[in-house]
Amino acid sequence: MVIGGDAAGMSAASQARRLRGPDELEIVAFERGHFSSFSACGIPYWVGGDVPERDRLIARTPEEHRARDIDLRMRTEVVEIDVEGARVRVRDVESGAESWTSYDKLVIATGARPIRPVLPGVDAPGVHGVQTLDDGQALLDTLSTTKGRRAVVVGAGYIGVEMAEALINRGYEVTVVNRGKEPMSTLDPDMGRLVHRAMAGMGITMVDDAEVTKVLTGDDGRVRAVATDDAEYPADVVVLGIGVRPETELAKAAGLPVGDHGGLLTDLSMRVRGHDDIWAGGDCVEVLDLVTGRERHIPLGTHANKHGQVIGSNVGGGYATFPGVVGTAVSKVCDLEIARTGLREKDARRAGLQYVTVTIESTSRAGYYPGAAPMTVKMLAERRTGRLLGVQIVGREGAGKRVDIAAVALTAGMTVEQMTVLDLGYAPPFSPVWDPILVAARKAATAVRSSAS
Amino acid sequence: MVIGGDAAGMSAASQARRLRGPDELEIVAFERGHFSSFSACGIPYWVGGDVPERDRLIARTPEEHRARDIDLRMRTEVVEIDVEGARVRVRDVESGAESWTSYDKLVIATGARPIRPVLPGVDAPGVHGVQTLDDGQALLDTLSTTKGRRAVVVGAGYIGVEMAEALINRGYEVTVVNRGKEPMSTLDPDMGRLVHRAMAGMGITMVDDAEVTKVLTGDDGRVRAVATDDAEYPADVVVLGIGVRPETELAKAAGLPVGDHGGLLTDLSMRVRGHDDIWAGGDCVEVLDLVTGRERHIPLGTHANKHGQVIGSNVGGGYATFPGVVGTAVSKVCDLEIARTGLREKDARRAGLQYVTVTIESTSRAGYYPGAAPMTVKMLAERRTGRLLGVQIVGREGAGKRVDIAAVALTAGMTVEQMTVLDLGYAPPFSPVWDPILVAARKAATAVRSSAS
Repeated sequence: MVIGGDAAGMSAASQARRLRGPDELEIVAFERGHFSSFSACGIPYWVGGDVPERDRLIARTPEEHRARDIDLRMRTEVVEIDVEGARVRVRDVESGAESWTSYDKLVIATGARPIRPVLPGVDAPGVHGVQTLDDGQALLDTLSTTKGRRAVVVGAGYIGVEMAEALINRGYEVTVVNRGKEPMSTLDPDMGRLVHRAMAGMGITMVDDAEVTKVLTGDDGRVRAVATDDAEYPADVVVLGIGVRPETELAKAAGLPVGDHGGLLTDLSMRVRGHDDIWAGGDCVEVLDLVTGRERHIPLGTHANKHGQVIGSNVGGGYATFPGVVGTAVSKVCDLEIARTGLREKDARRAGLQYVTVTIESTSRAGYYPGAAPMTVKMLAERRTGRLLGVQIVGREGAGKRVDIAAVALTAGMTVEQMTVLDLGYAPPFSPVWDPILVAARKAATAVRSSAS
Repeated sequence: MVIGGDAAGMSAASQARRLRGPDELEIVAFERGHFSSFSACGIPYWVGGDVPERDRLIARTPEEHRARDIDLRMRTEVVEIDVEGARVRVRDVESGAESWTSYDKLVIATGARPIRPVLPGVDAPGVHGVQTLDDGQALLDTLSTTKGRRAVVVGAGYIGVEMAEALINRGYEVTVVNRGKEPMSTLDPDMGRLVHRAMAGMGITMVDDAEVTKVLTGDDGRVRAVATDDAEYPADVVVLGIGVRPETELAKAAGLPVGDHGGLLTDLSMRVRGHDDIWAGGDCVEVLDLVTGRERHIPLGTHANKHGQVIGSNVGGGYATFPGVVGTAVSKVCDLEIARTGLREKDARRAGLQYVTVTIESTSRAGYYPGAAPMTVKMLAERRTGRLLGVQIVGREGAGKRVDIAAVALTAGMTVEQMTVLDLGYAPPFSPVWDPILVAARKAATAVRSSAS
């Protein structure tokens, strides 16, 4: 039995089905929403017009799942888990009818819930989240019926910046209101500063260090502005992109173990700790950070899919583990690419690690090759040992995915000295003769030697 | 004393100078050509018009080197190394005057020599190599003075395919004549087949499995066609892109150790084996293949620069090593990206390794995102252990540099099973939710399990 019909849940169901036919394993899945297996990460590109229609974001419809002998029940919410009795109480969302149903093995994939600030006016028409396809459709409806062209995005994390791009592409004047000193708090502030500058250069009004205190509405009840302590920002539409929290109310009520970040705690096989027959994956769990050895909450489709794959393999009688993450993320706003992996300075400090940090400027291609675009790479390495701790990248085309080089090096526990001689692909259209990651590694290795005392 | 004023030699000189000032270390370098520190890899893009002028390919002029207290003597050829006497005989190329000069430490960076087939007519006007800036200028002169628009490229390795692109960009009808069954013999034939198809689709005439037997000239003595055993291919210009051999005649005559591929043999600090005061790097040396533990000859600017860096550090009193390569290469022909790292099937067989191989199709971005282009990834893993052995990629924009993920994994000795959970950057504009490398790793891991018996 699977709770949640999106990436983690349905990947688990599909993988288990691949390993065990319907005669061997019955699979039932409950989804309270209208859609299964959709790409939430794609919503900004649908809203922005890059993806022409909603259904392109649906990887597999309920009918397709059912054709694979997965009994997926839509608009059916699980409202209680009875761990002792190995059963769940389900409610038909339309009729309200409830019933108990038993499981042998349970997969919890309830995802995450967007953080919606408790603010006066936040529920006014014209204020939108962007977590579900229904949210995306509602926002598109607002955009198509609203005459004004002023948009305020609340939050400057990756959802915020992606939505800023989407609204620019729709022809809006965009203001991004951000609690932090710089956008992209997943970067160190010095790298966030580069994002700030680039976004401002795109004509986006960046309001940093500002807390939204109120959503102001007009006579028609619709949003007309967003207020902070200091100012008001006129808005014909407001998008909330503040982030998400693990959706674990159900699990907590059932007494399942939840970590400091509110996510379910699992073992390496994605089994909920202390529960042999309950598994959990996706945005509702915490994952092990391989660099610090601590749990984190990282809601990302790519992890959810891997979790599902691992759970499905184990439930289906195979064997797989999810060892953890190094914290890789990549996003873009217009032609600016932003990437990170591993630890920021504050993460390293919090983990008790001493480190050196270097920042270099290079280009994505050979300097003389057309389209060579500047990119900035910041690298953290542990003092003395020289172990790579993290990389942050801000640049243009070809910059972002270079973070994968560092992600693999982090996973392998490489030192920056070892990284200086990595055999990376070189040709003028692809890289300078020293790839920017190698340039950063060389500088970091020098800094490590100076820190050896 | 440095022999050779290009990437390896001048990187070594520059790095040594960074560590030791002119009062501590005298540096003299000899270069027989007209240019120092130029990007041979950039020549196809200069010829093709992407790089507007020759001097953009020069990283550092002789004057710039001299301003850094490196006594670089141009048009000066070293014609003999007297190891016993720790001296070299140099000849002024213009005057022919010769003299002996002594060294304390010698760096050999003589590079590689293009393979020029011994063929009737190969020296006719209109037949060009593309190894040096002088070669590039001569070819450009021919292109600007020749009316006909038919070009034949001999060789379909990376120089050949890059020159095919350059000539297409110049408006030529291009024929590529290739000894092998498929272009890009650095790939397995099944992957080479994809390159063949793509190049044919660009309007390039692909002649495979064909040996050029003669260059035919017209009444004016200029090239008019290239002949194979079977056919003649009219040509107004012919480009030889057959590859290079280590330039080690000088070293061999001096009794220095040379390997099976004709390159100098060094230790990990890039010191010539058995010689405490002689170093060598760049295209004239063999490098250790970290996957097979055997020596190879891989002429690539990125290795040459690293060698120079290592040599300069050691000569300058620091410490650095070049552990070896995994065989990464990336190139493109028009919008087709071609990459490889590690072993091909025949390399694995030759090394005595049993392996599984998988090939997958995916896209460079999320399938629904604009510009998502198909890419093919082939992966080799060792039977039973599942250790990654190699990756080959053929695709469009965003495909090629993904080979770096595999290059780092190879360096770290990862198994394909470990690679299935790598934390790679994901967002729809950058990757499907399962990066193509992860898709290949998953399929390879399954194949390894089936091969376990």
